[in-house]
Amino acid sequence: MSKKKTENVSVFALGGVGEIGKNMYVVELDDDIFVIDAGLMFPGDEMLGIDIVIPDITYLKENKDRVRAIFITHGHEDHIGGLSYVLRDLKHVPVYGTKLTLGLIELKLKEAGLLKEVDLRLIDAKTKLTIADHFITFFRVNHSIPDCVGVCIQTSQGAIVHTGDFKFDYTPVDGKQSDFNKLAAIGQRGVLCLLSDSTNAERPGQTGSESLVGAELNDVIYQAEGRVIVASFASNVHRLQQVFAAAEANDRKVAVVGRSMVNIVEVAQKLNYLRFKPKTLVELSQVNRLPDNKVVILTTGSQGEPMAALTRMARNAHKQVNIRLNDTVVIAATPIPGNEKSVSKTIDLLFRSGANVIYNQRKVHVSGHGSAEELKLMLNLVKPKYFLPIHGEYRMQMAHSKLAEQVGVKSNNIFIVEKGDVVEFTGRKARMSRKVPAGNVLIDGIGVGDVGNIVLRDRRLLSQDGVVLCVVTLNRKQKKLISGPELISRGFVYMRESEEMISEANRIVTKQIEKSLQAGSDWTELKSNIRERLSVYLYEQTKRRPMILPIIMEI
Amino acid sequence: MSKKKTENVSVFALGGVGEIGKNMYVVELDDDIFVIDAGLMFPGDEMLGIDIVIPDITYLKENKDRVRAIFITHGHEDHIGGLSYVLRDLKHVPVYGTKLTLGLIELKLKEAGLLKEVDLRLIDAKTKLTIADHFITFFRVNHSIPDCVGVCIQTSQGAIVHTGDFKFDYTPVDGKQSDFNKLAAIGQRGVLCLLSDSTNAERPGQTGSESLVGAELNDVIYQAEGRVIVASFASNVHRLQQVFAAAEANDRKVAVVGRSMVNIVEVAQKLNYLRFKPKTLVELSQVNRLPDNKVVILTTGSQGEPMAALTRMARNAHKQVNIRLNDTVVIAATPIPGNEKSVSKTIDLLFRSGANVIYNQRKVHVSGHGSAEELKLMLNLVKPKYFLPIHGEYRMQMAHSKLAEQVGVKSNNIFIVEKGDVVEFTGRKARMSRKVPAGNVLIDGIGVGDVGNIVLRDRRLLSQDGVVLCVVTLNRKQKKLISGPELISRGFVYMRESEEMISEANRIVTKQIEKSLQAGSDWTELKSNIRERLSVYLYEQTKRRPMILPIIMEI
Repeated sequence: MSKKKTENVSVFALGGVGEIGKNMYVVELDDDIFVIDAGLMFPGDEMLGIDIVIPDITYLKENKDRVRAIFITHGHEDHIGGLSYVLRDLKHVPVYGTKLTLGLIELKLKEAGLLKEVDLRLIDAKTKLTIADHFITFFRVNHSIPDCVGVCIQTSQGAIVHTGDFKFDYTPVDGKQSDFNKLAAIGQRGVLCLLSDSTNAERPGQTGSESLVGAELNDVIYQAEGRVIVASFASNVHRLQQVFAAAEANDRKVAVVGRSMVNIVEVAQKLNYLRFKPKTLVELSQVNRLPDNKVVILTTGSQGEPMAALTRMARNAHKQVNIRLNDTVVIAATPIPGNEKSVSKTIDLLFRSGANVIYNQRKVHVSGHGSAEELKLMLNLVKPKYFLPIHGEYRMQMAHSKLAEQVGVKSNNIFIVEKGDVVEFTGRKARMSRKVPAGNVLIDGIGVGDVGNIVLRDRRLLSQDGVVLCVVTLNRKQKKLISGPELISRGFVYMRESEEMISEANRIVTKQIEKSLQAGSDWTELKSNIRERLSVYLYEQTKRRPMILPIIMEI
Repeated sequence: MSKKKTENVSVFALGGVGEIGKNMYVVELDDDIFVIDAGLMFPGDEMLGIDIVIPDITYLKENKDRVRAIFITHGHEDHIGGLSYVLRDLKHVPVYGTKLTLGLIELKLKEAGLLKEVDLRLIDAKTKLTIADHFITFFRVNHSIPDCVGVCIQTSQGAIVHTGDFKFDYTPVDGKQSDFNKLAAIGQRGVLCLLSDSTNAERPGQTGSESLVGAELNDVIYQAEGRVIVASFASNVHRLQQVFAAAEANDRKVAVVGRSMVNIVEVAQKLNYLRFKPKTLVELSQVNRLPDNKVVILTTGSQGEPMAALTRMARNAHKQVNIRLNDTVVIAATPIPGNEKSVSKTIDLLFRSGANVIYNQRKVHVSGHGSAEELKLMLNLVKPKYFLPIHGEYRMQMAHSKLAEQVGVKSNNIFIVEKGDVVEFTGRKARMSRKVPAGNVLIDGIGVGDVGNIVLRDRRLLSQDGVVLCVVTLNRKQKKLISGPELISRGFVYMRESEEMISEANRIVTKQIEKSLQAGSDWTELKSNIRERLSVYLYEQTKRRPMILPIIMEI
């Protein structure tokens, strides 16, 4: 560890605070920038047509020569999903991750055609790095995917500790407990600031071990008379492991369905994070040749995503698997906020197809994030001087800050930051100083950031009451309407059933155009007259406000 | 009670099964039709631009002369909200409801300008009716609004019993317990078929009394240092009563905000279902003159509805009330499935404004629907031969049917119906016989049923990737392009940032048009050529599929 004068230390989030998703945190030590995670977020309902959302990395691009490393805490989408966009601008920056994490990152980068251009570096929980004179270590934490680490960056003012996503699982599926001793030692040496996962700060008590789910799955499979279909997040590798184990314990084969599930099972098996007998895994096409009570199908779709395998099975629209009487379907996940309705719909469809559906009534899911008692334990171990609750919506950060106060952190030393708020540590003091650019970059198709508020506003308008075109040809010199107005609508009303209204609208617009022409209106005026006249009339008639587009051709 | 030969008895739902909302059930006795409830449903996310959804009443319209009565079990939107549409076609049919229920119905009918044309008839839980020789009685049940009843229609085969929405509250806020004895007597006399509320069939145990909330509200208000703002469903009159009582107990005044809240408080107070001292209620404008610790504000917006009062306060966009430090905000409701995200957003905004927000961590809400044990008690009291679980999504109906089996109803005697499935009772047997028309009627603005699948599909397309217009003037005789193509887009991309792509698209379309003109294509062909060519090119460039509308003017 280098001894030198007090560094200037800054910490901020480019994503992951005030929201669940697109985690990205930055630690700046004098001239050196370290990034932790680069995730994506799935769009809210109001972001019509948007595929994914990533953090705004303007600050990193503007300071790209100072970015020394990107540390990835684990392989979930909200921590790695933004990498293939971020790295386009930061190809020279090495990305550090554990074996499984890098395996999953490679999948993404391959798809994006970036794999060969970037610098991936393998670490494990024991790795010690010195980068640009700064000393960085890691510690193991438990979560719903194996091979998770937290990050500890040493500074002259004490350590900056980032927990990653974590819970304290005393009986983890892979037998690898959290690094309690290391955390205690880090705390002992002195921690300037802790950044800790707030997801379950509102939940009292302890989250419970993933192993509880194993026993439950085992029991469900034991009791099932027919096939068992288990839906889970593909990235919840511990859950997948338990499904394989329960299948083997009950002498069943496992088939895997859904692109991400197939990919992750393949990577996790290859890297030895998923263990099962070679004959346990069978092709989906073989399943129909096995007796029903020898089959487990592991599938995507636990969130009722319209195109996911389980949803298609439930709709009877899957090519290879349809739900039938005597199937047992296990939804081994809880709905992410916003997905409740689509999950309910899927469950209803499954019941209608005759399946026995097991969802929130049995303990077939536990969270991967620690609850209040675990968060307090982390604070007790690490004993930070300053505290930033991260990874959560504002109210979760609030709840986490209250826990920290209970544990003894001074309330003035807790910063509930928003994206871009920089917390600066200058020797004795810490304060929220400046703000760096931060926000949502929307990705629609292959366009990065070319959809903004105006485009979204138009989509919203169009989605509510559709569009009405008013097409007119005219000769302005002669002040004469040559043809039209022709009204064309989409998403507004059934034209056929509204003929009367449309022909009246036509009459009104014709009159308006003739009037405007006589008055010598210019095009802009003419267009706005048409728009206004039509808008008022259609609203009177229907109480709807379609987008109105006047199209004027002059000859 | 008339003695006569075995009647033909049919029962079906026009709404309320396979869904939460728009309840409407029909009991048909030979030639006489009785309707129970006429509710609305709020649209799902996929119903873009739709305001509300009501049941398809084609069957009732086709048989309007046989409809003898509409019984309304209670005054919630999902039971009365469709009335002002349904009664347009059934003005001659008397509507029966209790005092508060009719009070709320009158509000709606007045708005719709229908109040003077319809026949509202007051009942209470003791009313006995003979309509067209059929004997009808009611029984009191507890729910989150006062004055709720269930309906018992006598037939020669035994009674048809409809519970309405219910729970068994042993300590109801208004002191009026459920009619246990009457239910037991009805069961004793013989019940052909029970239709019972399935909302909480998936929940084990007992729901708990509304009075629990009162104690909690009292404590929250007692401890608050500043203003207390309570958000609740306006229609949850018991909850409102408890807010008034807790305010009085703590020597505070109550101001009411939000149109529906103001309306319902007025009606409920006038009809004596809400009791408080005259001076307790103050105008909102007076609130700022009172010390903060003398104020309770009762508001709408517990579901994070964008335009509701609480949401506007949270956004700092309410004219009279803004949230400030030291305010305590109580969200005295749970999110209806689908509203989780908007409720979370509102809570976050409130925290950001400095309020202390009390939501699901304290018992400031209990459900108005009975859980598993209460549903079993109802089955035990009524002892029906046949059973229809109603009022719930399919999986709730499933869960309820399992409870009924546990209680001893034969599984063959349980019918999990979908909308329009008619269950016919013909002496010894019961069977699902025919199907009557049933479905969703969508209401957008003042249009009833003029938005259907095509319009919705267009709105969905428009909402995803917007619209691109391709405007062309041509002279087909001379096979000549006169002007254009001009490309105009809305909700697709920022035109300014995509100039290159647009001019290339222009070139491609021009070539296509010239080719088609040379080949002598007709308009339909020309349009479809433009659409296809443009669609392929824009998809290649953006991976988006905007709606493409070719507009061709011929001169």
